[in-house]
Amino acid sequence: MSEETENIQFELTDELLGQVKLLVEGQKNKDLKELLDEFHYADIAEILDELNLEQAIYVIKLLDSETTSDILTELDEDIREKVLKNLSDKEIAEEVEELDTDDAVDIIQELPEERQQEVIEQIEDEEHKEEIKELLTYEDGTAGALMAKELVKVYETWTVAGCLRKIRAQAEEVTRVHSIYVVTKEEKLIGRLSLKNLITAKNEQKIADIYISNVDYVTVDEEDEEVAKVMAKYDLEAIPVVDENKKLLGRITIDDIVDLLKEEAEKDYQLAAGITQDVDSDDSILELTRARLPWLFLGLIGGIGAFIIMEGFQESFNHYKVLFFFTPLIAAMAGNVGVQSSAIIVQGLANDDVKGSINSRLFKEMLLAALNGLILAFFLFLFVWVTKGEVNTAFAISVSLVAVIIVAGLIGTFVPLFLDKRGIDPAIATGPFITTSNDILGILLYFWIAKLILGI
Amino acid sequence: MSEETENIQFELTDELLGQVKLLVEGQKNKDLKELLDEFHYADIAEILDELNLEQAIYVIKLLDSETTSDILTELDEDIREKVLKNLSDKEIAEEVEELDTDDAVDIIQELPEERQQEVIEQIEDEEHKEEIKELLTYEDGTAGALMAKELVKVYETWTVAGCLRKIRAQAEEVTRVHSIYVVTKEEKLIGRLSLKNLITAKNEQKIADIYISNVDYVTVDEEDEEVAKVMAKYDLEAIPVVDENKKLLGRITIDDIVDLLKEEAEKDYQLAAGITQDVDSDDSILELTRARLPWLFLGLIGGIGAFIIMEGFQESFNHYKVLFFFTPLIAAMAGNVGVQSSAIIVQGLANDDVKGSINSRLFKEMLLAALNGLILAFFLFLFVWVTKGEVNTAFAISVSLVAVIIVAGLIGTFVPLFLDKRGIDPAIATGPFITTSNDILGILLYFWIAKLILGI
Repeated sequence: MSEETENIQFELTDELLGQVKLLVEGQKNKDLKELLDEFHYADIAEILDELNLEQAIYVIKLLDSETTSDILTELDEDIREKVLKNLSDKEIAEEVEELDTDDAVDIIQELPEERQQEVIEQIEDEEHKEEIKELLTYEDGTAGALMAKELVKVYETWTVAGCLRKIRAQAEEVTRVHSIYVVTKEEKLIGRLSLKNLITAKNEQKIADIYISNVDYVTVDEEDEEVAKVMAKYDLEAIPVVDENKKLLGRITIDDIVDLLKEEAEKDYQLAAGITQDVDSDDSILELTRARLPWLFLGLIGGIGAFIIMEGFQESFNHYKVLFFFTPLIAAMAGNVGVQSSAIIVQGLANDDVKGSINSRLFKEMLLAALNGLILAFFLFLFVWVTKGEVNTAFAISVSLVAVIIVAGLIGTFVPLFLDKRGIDPAIATGPFITTSNDILGILLYFWIAKLILGI
Repeated sequence: MSEETENIQFELTDELLGQVKLLVEGQKNKDLKELLDEFHYADIAEILDELNLEQAIYVIKLLDSETTSDILTELDEDIREKVLKNLSDKEIAEEVEELDTDDAVDIIQELPEERQQEVIEQIEDEEHKEEIKELLTYEDGTAGALMAKELVKVYETWTVAGCLRKIRAQAEEVTRVHSIYVVTKEEKLIGRLSLKNLITAKNEQKIADIYISNVDYVTVDEEDEEVAKVMAKYDLEAIPVVDENKKLLGRITIDDIVDLLKEEAEKDYQLAAGITQDVDSDDSILELTRARLPWLFLGLIGGIGAFIIMEGFQESFNHYKVLFFFTPLIAAMAGNVGVQSSAIIVQGLANDDVKGSINSRLFKEMLLAALNGLILAFFLFLFVWVTKGEVNTAFAISVSLVAVIIVAGLIGTFVPLFLDKRGIDPAIATGPFITTSNDILGILLYFWIAKLILGI
């Protein structure tokens, strides 16, 4: 490590990148090592993301596995996949050996199934191997899949002095000591201690006398989103994971929760924007098409639906052609209102603050949509009346608009609540799904009400 | 605290709520206190959120200020505001006295300006008062506004034994000890120590000999989003904050960053859904209208624009009325493609992984949109051809669709990149803004190209 304290603001300049490339091409191993030793592994990962595959692998093989294992966890997923393809089972096993069990499992799970077993067999540390095998058995999306086996635990029968001795040994393996968990001799979780408690206690005291029995925990099959909610709510930095008999199995730390929250937020945002897969702007055109085309297809079908409706009303409105020119307005309003109301419900459900019955929600949304609708319809009425001079048409269009907005708001509120009740992620109901269905329904309703009012 | 370890899964049942209400109404103070003592303050806050104001204030005045100050920080914002209105300056000062400086400042900032001064004057602890006054001077949205003054620091000249003694005293005031910061006698940050380092070192060693000089930090005027990015990237649980001379001013902990990330994600999601203010589903109809109406107005204006365009093309397409029935389809596609491409760029910008020039981005988006457009146009062509039997019309509509999709994709890509370059939050470019402008432009382009192809 450098002697100077480092400024946190790492910036990947073209100059630095050029320098690294030059050193790689010139195979100046000593200079390259010296240069990269200055940087945090997350920064080195950023550099490698910008190199070509050959260069990246060169750097990874050059640095020692303690650093490269951390770099691997931070690499862009696509690049990591390629790098792993170019490492032998033995090499991957060596990287994995350096990592905490949760990160090790993340790496192994990205390998093709047939390779996973082979890599695991190459891990030399038997305990690490068994722990990784155990973690691989937990279902994705549960606390078990998120936790690490590394933790510091003490038995209630120990003394403070004995404890400090043991902790020194255990702490070597644990990157950060959050809480010390207190267990019975059957490994049952009964409480916790902080290092602070320990250093302020007397050496001869028994753990059983000083531990804090009030300890938060989650069970191993708890949903990961639920774990995130709990840790955020209680401001926890780590939480122990237990089985149904309260046997201590592992712990989850806040940095994994931060990553999870970011991923969840991105997924919801993408769903709202009509993107079905996890993609980023640097993915290939084919991948991006796969993520975007399904929703566009839905839009195409919706558009064809709107076409069929309009054609159906063609005869009736022979004398009111102007009505057809307002369909984009009606469709846009129906879509926007639907997305707004569904977004508020989806967010409320995510934060557990949608209370009361579905009916009271729908009633509130109806009032809200009616208020918005009346204000907007007033301006639309003025516009049509002033420019067209036809009060009847203006009235018909405006009344339809209010009705369309109310119905759109109700659908936007109802669909996510309904999906949630059926155990389906309500976030899929936002974006193109609501927009498209509201478009068609809005247009249908619009012509139908206008026809009624104009008495055709 | 209860003797049993508590299960984390607190659920606010109607039964529990009824029980609390009954005890409040009956003024059964002892039973009420006993009941609530079982719960975490975040859970009590959840209970108070469901009581009426009078009941909530009754509970707050009943419990001791050590608990109620924490409850206050967790209460729903609207309810906290009302509760604070009903507490005297002295009472608020007592609550604030119990809180860490960052939480104390959050509470004080919610008070009307004229009250802030009065409450601060009532704080008895002079040091706490001065620290709060200092924190209030930092601009919102900076590291300074996010940090707390509570931290554990040691001077490089101390010994390990002396250090442990001093830390015991300092640690009393600090809820959680993350890192111990090492400073010179001029208070300049030069490194860090973990408690783990300290308990594994020998008593007579000097701090100067054992501290880790490699310490991440941020300056006090750094943007809070930047701090969040850094802490997430380096998996930090706390980060020290310094001034331009590296004088240690405070520290930011990960729980504040978790809250910040959640807020940011909600804000972006709401912007994408066309909601301008921070609202939740329990807000009043008036508040919700204020948040939703502006974007709907934009939609109204867009719709009127579309109307004017369609009316303008009315004469030209007298013999191709069918074209008008496809405007909702064209508008929907333009809107959807625009939102998709802008969402990917906005997200990429937030994650700092939009690299390369604007031109190369636009070129890629053009290829992508062209590919999507061709696939969709193929199906649309088939539909129009089969149902209408007019090859010319089918061709004109399909070609227009491809053009509209390409332009929509380019706009969706360009606008957020442009806003970002100008230092404006690109997230405002998603949702209704892109949808509306793409709607109008798409419809205009559609008629214009169709006219060209059909040779009218």
